[in-house]
Amino acid sequence: MNKTVDSLKVELKDAQIEQLKLSSAVTSLEMFRMNLNNSKFDLQKKVAFTAGVTSSSTTWNRGTLVFPTVINNIGGGYNPNTGVFKAPTEGHYVFFVTVVEYIKQYSKVDIVLNGSSKVRTIGDSNAAFQTGVNMAVLRLQQGDTVWIRHASGKGYYSNSIPITTFSGFLL
Amino acid sequence: MNKTVDSLKVELKDAQIEQLKLSSAVTSLEMFRMNLNNSKFDLQKKVAFTAGVTSSSTTWNRGTLVFPTVINNIGGGYNPNTGVFKAPTEGHYVFFVTVVEYIKQYSKVDIVLNGSSKVRTIGDSNAAFQTGVNMAVLRLQQGDTVWIRHASGKGYYSNSIPITTFSGFLL
Amino acid sequence: MNKTVDSLKVELKDAQIEQLKLSSAVTSLEMFRMNLNNSKFDLQKKVAFTAGVTSSSTTWNRGTLVFPTVINNIGGGYNPNTGVFKAPTEGHYVFFVTVVEYIKQYSKVDIVLNGSSKVRTIGDSNAAFQTGVNMAVLRLQQGDTVWIRHASGKGYYSNSIPITTFSGFLL
Repeated sequence: MNKTVDSLKVELKDAQIEQLKLSSAVTSLEMFRMNLNNSKFDLQKKVAFTAGVTSSSTTWNRGTLVFPTVINNIGGGYNPNTGVFKAPTEGHYVFFVTVVEYIKQYSKVDIVLNGSSKVRTIGDSNAAFQTGVNMAVLRLQQGDTVWIRHASGKGYYSNSIPITTFSGFLL
Repeated sequence: MNKTVDSLKVELKDAQIEQLKLSSAVTSLEMFRMNLNNSKFDLQKKVAFTAGVTSSSTTWNRGTLVFPTVINNIGGGYNPNTGVFKAPTEGHYVFFVTVVEYIKQYSKVDIVLNGSSKVRTIGDSNAAFQTGVNMAVLRLQQGDTVWIRHASGKGYYSNSIPITTFSGFLL
Repeated sequence: MNKTVDSLKVELKDAQIEQLKLSSAVTSLEMFRMNLNNSKFDLQKKVAFTAGVTSSSTTWNRGTLVFPTVINNIGGGYNPNTGVFKAPTEGHYVFFVTVVEYIKQYSKVDIVLNGSSKVRTIGDSNAAFQTGVNMAVLRLQQGDTVWIRHASGKGYYSNSIPITTFSGFLL
């Protein structure tokens, strides 16, 4: 009888030690899950847009190029009324612009971050309807703004299926 | 003796209560893992392709532009025989096309989703070998198809190293 | 008394069996975490750059096109002294290049992986300042190198805001 109870005591002690180990392992796993939720799920937030213009302009010669026709606007960052993309979340974004010059009127536009020009396109006046295009990978903080700004020339060319377009996406 | 057994009973009860807590925590972690497998691992599936044409055409004037030379085709979505990309998984995709016009034959092509034109390129006839280019970020369901469709003009220009190309990738 | 001890034995045995199950579940969860750390966290490593040239060249006619002005270089893969991108980690990368020809001097450049041309741009001499552009999605191993190589023609055009640019990012 004493022997049985002694043996039970040993076994219970062993089980308690094992339980402490398991408890510690579970706590560690729970912290891992918490970190995953805080970091990785944020990174997975999708932000991606393509917008275009569906008619040409012979006169546009200043300020922001507004692309009113939204083909896609996941994450809601792009505003088709103002032409401005506002980062819904911090991260690395890719921006891409295509602007076709109107006949030989010349066209240069910039991809602009918070008012600062980053890269430029050119559609030279030497030939009609030259395509200007560029891309910039930019690090944005939440609320940073990116848009397409007139740099030189006049007007742009597009069709009902947009040729002059603006795209961006979060990596 | 009674005292020892009573003490064992208390300790065992404590261990059982702790075990229930651990069991509940482990179940919660297992559900988290299951959700991860269902959502995040799917999102991580890699789909990315670049294909090109390695010779020019003076006559192409309808239907799908087939890019037979595969530079990359991760995920197997792009079919080099048909020119059609079929989404192996739902998600946000980026598509990019470059088509260089053949001399002054004019060239317009569209990036098409399930038969619907999304964006267009232009290589105008005013100058020779103008590059038409565009990008579209599209939300696809599994099985949706994207391809490059003739819109206007005739032929395209390329080299053995492709200049006229089609790329796509899952974000 | 005997009955109490017998009952304790049974309960302890049950707890031990349950503990083995929990232990096995925790081990499985820990392996899952380890796999996550090995694969998914690596995939999240950010590599993304955009670089440009901020003045034109009338003479460049061989070798690597060096883009000395860094707009972004997350992950440190791009070397603005050599113009070469060296993959800090394996994975699927997207590369994009825009080269504008200098007046009518003609321009062809290639996106090159470890010395092998993948896709080409053209800025034909028929019109001035034609934009050549292309993209390639490439599977890289760690240490693989990608750069822009002269293929034909002479010089390139740019502004203080770069028009001739090179971008890349890890998917």
